[in-house]
Amino acid sequence: TIYLVTPTYARSSQHVDLTRFCYTIRQVPKVHWIVVEDAEVHSPEVRRILNDCEVAFSHLVALTPPRENAQICRKVDSQPRGVKQRNTGLVELRRLLSLNGGRDGVVYFADDDNTYSLEIFERMRHIKAVGVWRVAFVGGLSYEGPVVDMGPNGPRISGWHVAWATDRKYPVDMAAFALNTRLITAQPDVYFPTHALDGHLETDFLSAVVPEGVELEPLGFELDRVLVWHTRTELPNLRQEGKLPPDRRPIII
Amino acid sequence: TIYLVTPTYARSSQHVDLTRFCYTIRQVPKVHWIVVEDAEVHSPEVRRILNDCEVAFSHLVALTPPRENAQICRKVDSQPRGVKQRNTGLVELRRLLSLNGGRDGVVYFADDDNTYSLEIFERMRHIKAVGVWRVAFVGGLSYEGPVVDMGPNGPRISGWHVAWATDRKYPVDMAAFALNTRLITAQPDVYFPTHALDGHLETDFLSAVVPEGVELEPLGFELDRVLVWHTRTELPNLRQEGKLPPDRRPIII
Ligand SMILES: O=c1ccn([C@@H]2O[C@H](COP(=O)(O)OP(=O)(O)O)[C@@H](O)[C@H]2O)c(=O)[nH]1
Ligand SMILES: O=c1ccn([C@@H]2O[C@H](COP(=O)(O)OP(=O)(O)O)[C@@H](O)[C@H]2O)c(=O)[nH]1
Ligand SMILES: [Mn+2]
Ligand SMILES: [Mn+2]
Repeated sequence: TIYLVTPTYARSSQHVDLTRFCYTIRQVPKVHWIVVEDAEVHSPEVRRILNDCEVAFSHLVALTPPRENAQICRKVDSQPRGVKQRNTGLVELRRLLSLNGGRDGVVYFADDDNTYSLEIFERMRHIKAVGVWRVAFVGGLSYEGPVVDMGPNGPRISGWHVAWATDRKYPVDMAAFALNTRLITAQPDVYFPTHALDGHLETDFLSAVVPEGVELEPLGFELDRVLVWHTRTELPNLRQEGKLPPDRRPIII
Repeated sequence: TIYLVTPTYARSSQHVDLTRFCYTIRQVPKVHWIVVEDAEVHSPEVRRILNDCEVAFSHLVALTPPRENAQICRKVDSQPRGVKQRNTGLVELRRLLSLNGGRDGVVYFADDDNTYSLEIFERMRHIKAVGVWRVAFVGGLSYEGPVVDMGPNGPRISGWHVAWATDRKYPVDMAAFALNTRLITAQPDVYFPTHALDGHLETDFLSAVVPEGVELEPLGFELDRVLVWHTRTELPNLRQEGKLPPDRRPIII
């Protein structure tokens, strides 16, 4: 099973982003979609999208707490976006794994607005510990990703194609890695840090979760194209809204 | 068959937009995707996306000619985006229809960056002449669309939920309508106008193509939600590009 942990929050493009996401993953066999709303209560429309998607899912809520005095110090972000939700997703993941008798799976922290090729899901099924790959439109680059050399024992990551905060141990975006679920069950106390240096959430999490001596497994490196895009949906222009008389009945967008 | 006419042009999000589009329509039975690149030559990566999509397709090119002295007069746009491509698509559509012995179908002018629910395709199959429906994020509104009343002979369009250029005869976006292909074969000279008032391309085309006395058929009006979203993919920040040494080999994004 591929477990997808997806934080989501209310905004004009929420339903359309979740719909497109569903349209991709419903074509992937053996998926369990853990959706965690940044909200106090479950949204009926989000629930409808999940119900209609025809994949196994968990529908949870976890509200991001108010920031502690904006920021603790310059560059340290308390509760970066999606953290509380991903951690709630990890609790749910551990619950699901304890039910299925510890069979192997993979967990991927898949934001609701990115674009995923079907190929990346097939490839991530075979991750032994931690897989990483290129992601387009991250860090001011057309793509970020591992630089891979062929060594005597197969492919090896020799560096990183990255231009920003290059001193990070794991200079990757959230969409760039997935983990074998054994790492999650074997380390029941691992969560995302609620305080991280700006852009250091992923490297801090991976530093905690990747066991000593484990080498990252590069995926899709032999291709001449990317398999995941860090897309964002443009904010729609709603300038005329309010100029019209109110609707007879509200229409869900 | 649902014939989809899709103009597309080279930009950073072209491949990801086409990939998402493909992921939707490959779940729709009996589709023929007519893709017309705004380019001089066929792009190999666009071809790969089409080949891998597992839908019937035509892959054509038609370059938008240079604008005639920018604009002929204020507010008249010569060759608005996608026009040359849609007209090339109409030529291909008439060719395909002449081959299949005139069986009924539907044609939809589906831009590559919008988002389409699977439901809209099922509904448009049954269009007798011209179907119309709501589209989100158009004309400065959260949605534009027909206002529908139940008359003695069924649903009837009594007005339009629209705030901009309300004097248009058919105040709709390109994504808001589809046509029975009989209208296309019966009127072999109908094309999109290469000169139209800003935002009047759809109404000018429909004024030419909708026969006298034919009433538009509203679809999805009984729902409390939209089935098509006029989305746009955010321009990625590529500020760090060029700061890195050139790639060993180029990566397609
Ligand atoms: O207040 C917020 C902002 C974002 N998110 C979710 O967290 C993830 C990352 O947010 P976003 O996509 O906005 O970040 P970016 O595109 O800048 O990486 C997405 O799944 C969002 O839906 C959230 O739950 N609460
Ligand atoms: O120079 C261009 C600009 C756009 N398009 C295509 O024409 C359609 C409409 O363009 P766009 O989506 O940019 O328009 P908007 O989102 O503003 O309606 C899309 O399928 C584009 O790929 C094109 O072929 N050439
Ligand atoms: Mn995002
Ligand atoms: Mn568009």
